[in-house]
Amino acid sequence: MIIGTLGPQGSFSEKAAKQWNDKAELRYYDDIFDTVDALLHKEVDYSIVPIENSIEGSITLTLDILMEQQLKISGEVIVQIEHCLLSKGKRSEIKRIMSIPQALSQCRKYIKKNFNNIEVHSTLSTSQAAKLALESKEFAAIASRESARTYGLNILDENIQDANENFTRFIVIGRTTPKPSGNDKTSIIVYLEKNRPGALYEILGEFANRGIDLTRIESRPTKKVLGDYLFYIDLKGHIEDRIIKDALDKIKNKVGMLKILGSYPVAK
Amino acid sequence: MIIGTLGPQGSFSEKAAKQWNDKAELRYYDDIFDTVDALLHKEVDYSIVPIENSIEGSITLTLDILMEQQLKISGEVIVQIEHCLLSKGKRSEIKRIMSIPQALSQCRKYIKKNFNNIEVHSTLSTSQAAKLALESKEFAAIASRESARTYGLNILDENIQDANENFTRFIVIGRTTPKPSGNDKTSIIVYLEKNRPGALYEILGEFANRGIDLTRIESRPTKKVLGDYLFYIDLKGHIEDRIIKDALDKIKNKVGMLKILGSYPVAK
Repeated sequence: MIIGTLGPQGSFSEKAAKQWNDKAELRYYDDIFDTVDALLHKEVDYSIVPIENSIEGSITLTLDILMEQQLKISGEVIVQIEHCLLSKGKRSEIKRIMSIPQALSQCRKYIKKNFNNIEVHSTLSTSQAAKLALESKEFAAIASRESARTYGLNILDENIQDANENFTRFIVIGRTTPKPSGNDKTSIIVYLEKNRPGALYEILGEFANRGIDLTRIESRPTKKVLGDYLFYIDLKGHIEDRIIKDALDKIKNKVGMLKILGSYPVAK
Repeated sequence: MIIGTLGPQGSFSEKAAKQWNDKAELRYYDDIFDTVDALLHKEVDYSIVPIENSIEGSITLTLDILMEQQLKISGEVIVQIEHCLLSKGKRSEIKRIMSIPQALSQCRKYIKKNFNNIEVHSTLSTSQAAKLALESKEFAAIASRESARTYGLNILDENIQDANENFTRFIVIGRTTPKPSGNDKTSIIVYLEKNRPGALYEILGEFANRGIDLTRIESRPTKKVLGDYLFYIDLKGHIEDRIIKDALDKIKNKVGMLKILGSYPVAK
């Protein structure tokens, strides 16, 4: 099995891929787009990309790709994130801090408190930031402890994220839906007709009345008109469960669009 | 009246502030934090910050500040966003593109198509990007048409955002709730007890059963545990309306927390 993930080595995505399947061959890509493209072009069997962080919220790019492409979510992995400040130089020498926008945002208070008026640059991956940090003692990267080892950087500070509990949920994207495991989740996208008050309420009723547990509900703009939303909903159960199938059949007739992203085992 | 907004001059936030009140004195701040701080420290009477874009979705930083601080939303403004690529150099010379993360994201396809493998840097404001673009012919900024004039840059491309309809909604933050205007919105944050299936459904029922129209519902992580959310809800009506007051009174007893952010006239 070949898994595509965000590279380079040492990234949190690599950690997620290994956590999901430690025997698979890994291929590394520059960004979320390229990782998904690799799956679309059949270079890999699965792609693993981040979808949600416990501090920062959704990775909206991943949500948008799930809407645009015909792919299945085949699994999920939860990884604990510990950000470190890495550099070749000393703390007092740092003039620029680099990382992915999510990491910069997760360490916002730390940066504001310790490095006022510093230059902040976003990169495509935490590992790319680590690589760039090699160029000058004035540069620092926010990245994983593993990246410090991989690139030979000093760890100036550990666990610098603003909240102690920092987890990222990754999804495994593939082409098929795994069979029920006994503890599954199903992900869907629903588009409600605009300006119909109570439409979301009706949809949620189909789940509530059947005792189906929603683990997540997230709105995203349709990108057409301000105030027009798609709803991304995760629910407990497998699409092959009678009760889930019934609820989705009812919902299909009430909404502008229902896209089933897949059913997959809940992350351990 | 003094209004704090994201500077420097030429920013979309300045446009929003002028659209809301074209007679007020404007003070410019570097980022959303500083703009809100100015209000907290009474340097300004109101602060205007972006909260939602029709392509990119919520400005999560603003949502988080609304949760953390005791402030009122006193109004809203909707501004049309037209991104341009600005530079001193020619299209073929560009080696680095700079802008705020939201603008970079809104022009993602344009950048990918026209400037493959280019260096992309995020800045604190579109105007800051324009200023930096003055430093080299190899730099380009994604910013407004007004910024080209303000900083003396060439417009290499116009309307480069991926979707044609691009609007940003700004909120006016103040210390008081304006009286009912006849066409108002109320914004609230609700925290549901974790792991109680159907809780969101019950809340939405209080609105649906009273015919109250929800214009927006958005989930944000509580930043404590993955899968634990706050819901930001906008609804039509004023907190002084009997029907709204009744619904919120009922909801207060059913949720872990209800925060009323304010009632304000709907943007024209």
